[in-house]
Amino acid sequence: MKFQLPKYHEPDFTKPLFVDAPNAKLKEVTLDGVAPNNFHSTSMYPEYFKINGKWLLAEESRMDSSVVLSEDGKLMVVENRNLEKGQKVIIGRTEKAEEGIYMWCHGFEAKAQSKLDDQFVFRQGRSRETSYSKDYDKLISLLKYEKANEGYVVWVMGPAFSFDAKARSTMQALVENGYCQALMAGNALATHDLEGAYFHTALGQDIYTQESQPNGHYNHLDVDNKVREAGSIPAFIENEKIDNGIIYSCVKNNIPIVLTSSIRDDGPLPEVIADAYQGQMAMREQVKKATTVITLATMLHTIATGNMTPSFRKQKDGVIRPLYFYSIDADEFVVNKLIDRGSLSATTMVTNVQDFITKVASGLNVI
Amino acid sequence: MKFQLPKYHEPDFTKPLFVDAPNAKLKEVTLDGVAPNNFHSTSMYPEYFKINGKWLLAEESRMDSSVVLSEDGKLMVVENRNLEKGQKVIIGRTEKAEEGIYMWCHGFEAKAQSKLDDQFVFRQGRSRETSYSKDYDKLISLLKYEKANEGYVVWVMGPAFSFDAKARSTMQALVENGYCQALMAGNALATHDLEGAYFHTALGQDIYTQESQPNGHYNHLDVDNKVREAGSIPAFIENEKIDNGIIYSCVKNNIPIVLTSSIRDDGPLPEVIADAYQGQMAMREQVKKATTVITLATMLHTIATGNMTPSFRKQKDGVIRPLYFYSIDADEFVVNKLIDRGSLSATTMVTNVQDFITKVASGLNVI
Amino acid sequence: MKFQLPKYHEPDFTKPLFVDAPNAKLKEVTLDGVAPNNFHSTSMYPEYFKINGKWLLAEESRMDSSVVLSEDGKLMVVENRNLEKGQKVIIGRTEKAEEGIYMWCHGFEAKAQSKLDDQFVFRQGRSRETSYSKDYDKLISLLKYEKANEGYVVWVMGPAFSFDAKARSTMQALVENGYCQALMAGNALATHDLEGAYFHTALGQDIYTQESQPNGHYNHLDVDNKVREAGSIPAFIENEKIDNGIIYSCVKNNIPIVLTSSIRDDGPLPEVIADAYQGQMAMREQVKKATTVITLATMLHTIATGNMTPSFRKQKDGVIRPLYFYSIDADEFVVNKLIDRGSLSATTMVTNVQDFITKVASGLNVI
Amino acid sequence: MKFQLPKYHEPDFTKPLFVDAPNAKLKEVTLDGVAPNNFHSTSMYPEYFKINGKWLLAEESRMDSSVVLSEDGKLMVVENRNLEKGQKVIIGRTEKAEEGIYMWCHGFEAKAQSKLDDQFVFRQGRSRETSYSKDYDKLISLLKYEKANEGYVVWVMGPAFSFDAKARSTMQALVENGYCQALMAGNALATHDLEGAYFHTALGQDIYTQESQPNGHYNHLDVDNKVREAGSIPAFIENEKIDNGIIYSCVKNNIPIVLTSSIRDDGPLPEVIADAYQGQMAMREQVKKATTVITLATMLHTIATGNMTPSFRKQKDGVIRPLYFYSIDADEFVVNKLIDRGSLSATTMVTNVQDFITKVASGLNVI
Repeated sequence: MKFQLPKYHEPDFTKPLFVDAPNAKLKEVTLDGVAPNNFHSTSMYPEYFKINGKWLLAEESRMDSSVVLSEDGKLMVVENRNLEKGQKVIIGRTEKAEEGIYMWCHGFEAKAQSKLDDQFVFRQGRSRETSYSKDYDKLISLLKYEKANEGYVVWVMGPAFSFDAKARSTMQALVENGYCQALMAGNALATHDLEGAYFHTALGQDIYTQESQPNGHYNHLDVDNKVREAGSIPAFIENEKIDNGIIYSCVKNNIPIVLTSSIRDDGPLPEVIADAYQGQMAMREQVKKATTVITLATMLHTIATGNMTPSFRKQKDGVIRPLYFYSIDADEFVVNKLIDRGSLSATTMVTNVQDFITKVASGLNVI
Repeated sequence: MKFQLPKYHEPDFTKPLFVDAPNAKLKEVTLDGVAPNNFHSTSMYPEYFKINGKWLLAEESRMDSSVVLSEDGKLMVVENRNLEKGQKVIIGRTEKAEEGIYMWCHGFEAKAQSKLDDQFVFRQGRSRETSYSKDYDKLISLLKYEKANEGYVVWVMGPAFSFDAKARSTMQALVENGYCQALMAGNALATHDLEGAYFHTALGQDIYTQESQPNGHYNHLDVDNKVREAGSIPAFIENEKIDNGIIYSCVKNNIPIVLTSSIRDDGPLPEVIADAYQGQMAMREQVKKATTVITLATMLHTIATGNMTPSFRKQKDGVIRPLYFYSIDADEFVVNKLIDRGSLSATTMVTNVQDFITKVASGLNVI
Repeated sequence: MKFQLPKYHEPDFTKPLFVDAPNAKLKEVTLDGVAPNNFHSTSMYPEYFKINGKWLLAEESRMDSSVVLSEDGKLMVVENRNLEKGQKVIIGRTEKAEEGIYMWCHGFEAKAQSKLDDQFVFRQGRSRETSYSKDYDKLISLLKYEKANEGYVVWVMGPAFSFDAKARSTMQALVENGYCQALMAGNALATHDLEGAYFHTALGQDIYTQESQPNGHYNHLDVDNKVREAGSIPAFIENEKIDNGIIYSCVKNNIPIVLTSSIRDDGPLPEVIADAYQGQMAMREQVKKATTVITLATMLHTIATGNMTPSFRKQKDGVIRPLYFYSIDADEFVVNKLIDRGSLSATTMVTNVQDFITKVASGLNVI
Repeated sequence: MKFQLPKYHEPDFTKPLFVDAPNAKLKEVTLDGVAPNNFHSTSMYPEYFKINGKWLLAEESRMDSSVVLSEDGKLMVVENRNLEKGQKVIIGRTEKAEEGIYMWCHGFEAKAQSKLDDQFVFRQGRSRETSYSKDYDKLISLLKYEKANEGYVVWVMGPAFSFDAKARSTMQALVENGYCQALMAGNALATHDLEGAYFHTALGQDIYTQESQPNGHYNHLDVDNKVREAGSIPAFIENEKIDNGIIYSCVKNNIPIVLTSSIRDDGPLPEVIADAYQGQMAMREQVKKATTVITLATMLHTIATGNMTPSFRKQKDGVIRPLYFYSIDADEFVVNKLIDRGSLSATTMVTNVQDFITKVASGLNVI
């Protein structure tokens, strides 16, 4: 299967619907971090706003944020808490041009699509019983495409990923072979991955044999403590001559790592961003570059990332393309929750992430 | 990893514990299908009974059944419902030789085993977060061993297995390459696998593209109906020139298929055994030959099979070896339920069976 | 909340769509248990067939079955396996009168219904996070209505129901107070409920204190054996002076119990129907009378019952009313599976059935 | 059932084991936030340390922290990140007095306890199939005891709790009747509870009828924005005349609320503590007073709280009593994860928290 980007079709702004629409209204922020009444809130889809008679795209969008018209006439998508006094925010809560606001969900659809009109169709949801063969094939061809075309693939991981020796070494191989441009995770993934490198355990259990090690419950605490003593993850890696693992390979290959905090952290490692909202900003910096996002075995980080990931990306060359979002989890609940919260355009797969990653890497011939 | 069978150590029957023990008591069945009071019920482990001063092994055991001393002095393990008037059943509910009954759980353990004595050990259960790398390696080496040594591998499958094109063709490859000696399943697995061959769908959904087919909800009904018209699965395969799938490859390679009924069946296909207890007997005929059992994505069949599968097998050459039992399911609940019911010696893995099967087959180089 | 039955509106058969439609075509069965090609398969909804120029309702419907025109001009809905040579079966796979077949999904809807047209709506599925307050209120008022109006409430239960002392006594109270007209279950529910009465355990664990009893794993085997010895459940109840439990209260109050088999049964109890398809027929006999069906904690029986339960019931007085179907399970997967298989009109609730039953019974003032 | 606190038995420090043990060793912290090598890490159990020949209890303990000997001779349990240069930390990783460290797990056990010694015991885990009747009875009697004896009950909640009208009003009733001394949650619980008060929705869905409201996806954003505009939750409650809900009743009754952040937050509300580790400290301030902790429908907060909650509490009068920890979730995985992480002494219940809370409140006669 060879991957091909679908073309983006802009709305036809010469139609009366658009020509006759009013300009979007703006209102000034009067209090830092507070949006004006009736603020318009963004979705994951491309949205256009009529400004001085012209329809402008908010290029770097995300869900649940306000749209600010900057002084140089650009549209910025800003979380309400980051709004600043004096900024001009678009107001209005219609989306079909009535108030100069247009949400465009069908930009990547080919023209002639017919839908099945049966009254009974089985198995419309995504579950462990869904057939995923084609999804694997498509994802593998997508990742090849991204590598060949300077895509930016962001991986988002829960701690489980570091519990299995093979999953861990496979992810390392993906990093080393150019299939990962950024890693986002919490303190636990990083700690247990480094525990794997230092003690060959995760939470004290051997990552290959599953055998619990004597006093192994100290291992992650010792790793946290030693990294804190070293002052940084790279210093720890150098001091202790760490030579394997996910974190190691990211550091070695200059892949940015964003580690965000949670209230269940031990430690934390020095690089972890303690403030959740600064953490979100650091995550969004990566997402703003992303062309594909893959989240694995973490409800917290999956939903956090889903909230800030639009369905499209404007490339440097001006081309608008889909931003692909894959979410893999062993639990249908996580997958459904993502959809319940409005992240509708994700491809979700229900499986153990250990198996997922080895199948993908095998398809890419890196293991 | 090269597989090696562990050696079996018999209890040392020269010890006073055994020498001084009384003979096991027997009581006659007075009503067909009803055990005498205080009947001894078997476990999955090897159990020895002192008969006329000699300790005899019940060779073909299973859980929750009575032990009958046959006229030629052999011990048969018989479900209570299958007991016949006049048979002599062992009574007594102790297991440490007090009543001439001895259960032996440690026959396959090497002598010098030390156990970790920590008060705190994380992660003792089996979940999606368990490290399964070694389990995969071991299972793959075990299957190679079984093939090389005339083992008898019984696969037990839920319907989900036929929903994915790749899982289905992979299982076919395992059958064709000699890694499957018997298949046990329900009506649904067989129907949907044949639907896959005939319509390239499962419950009307394309097994590769996931697209729902027009009027696809008729597909499994049509398959059921056509096979019933043909009179048998092999006749249907011949009539319709079916040339792919799990059922097809079993038929072609003379692999026995045991299809048992359930109250949620449509159809059923002609081969399905309508009576649940006759179904159990047909299943046990296969299990009696099994050296490895693998159950996938079916709580019903997994527990049914687990109930009748002992932890050991006496080979034709007299050697006693472990009977390996693997249970794979996406849901921890199924895995825990197996253990809650007493099937303690299984290796359980929590993952999507589609991924499980492709990893195993890839390790065996059949795909 | 007072319950009120919604009124049923027949399609307006004076419309050209119906007047101009052809008569439905019929084809003869040539082989017992096999439908003719292109057989029409029923849904859970009311379906009308044009016979000799008149539109007739198939009154006792169920999913996935054929429609037979009897000699006296009535439409019978018959599972394909129960078709007999010479019967005339309706053929055709359209449902909008094109071939004289009309499926009617909107009979119970009030005229003026507007639907929300938002592009974004959160939480459309049913999960543990759905608000169930109103569903409880409605179900409680429905059950009061059924009791007052000679409704027929069928309860379908998994074994878990007998594991908790309070859930068990609560169900007994519902039976004794007239809220249960039939009980459908498997061997396990009945065995463990009787174990609860005889030993105060379920699978050897005290049903109130959770304490495992010495040699408790014998308890269910002993119960099975003793009931088999007695020859029937009522005989066992009399012999052993059983005076509590679900099964006891049904027997005492002449509530029909349908026990169907599965391949994971021990025993079974004498009343269990060994043949799955005879079991289905016995279940459908109850469902044919049902006005409300409630399934609890059993995937197997829930789907089996869902398959044979239509969305409507024609009362003796000729009135067509909804047949309410509630499915309660701790697992979203069961709930979603029910929907995946096409049982679309059920009200599903995700919770522990122990808590469900005590809330319902408390609302009905029976505990 | 009347609740009675179990008595605490100190170890018998006159035994040679303790008399002959060495004093515990101490080592100085040389870097803020970093423990010395071989630091001793605490458990949830009472631990005693031999200091100058006397065995001292670390009174305010928690898991995974260091023990600091203060200048006035007291033992403080301090998270490694909060260690300060110059503090003296106990080192040593044995727990049976070998190094002057003794962990005491059996302080609340009555003397004569015999354990069941069966080789087979079913159903040892906790699942949806566990019998919870006695757990409910015990919890209800415990809560009455706490109210009568100035206990301190800390409730920890996930957002699901605010999605159901009845669950929400029931929790309000528990607060108003003195059964809640502190509330810990995230931004989402508070936002959706206030959304419930302001719009009668949660995420735009009516909390009683389940109907999605027009443009309802704006509701939680509007609430967040309005509270931020008001400057605080109490100001919002006053401005908008909010008169119902969980948050409202806590504010009205001066119940402390600790809201901690997560990277998936919108908003946040002004009271949310952005820094995860400051959040932990605020939580631990509440836990230090707790006599009972109840966590509901939140994996994140449950594990965070479990990590910092010891199994015992020293009351002001010097009496040592159990600190009861209940964890309720619809998902066995959460429950098992708590145990996998070492929080072994919790009572876990698998059910929908809506039903849990109404059963408890009904038992306490507050609804």
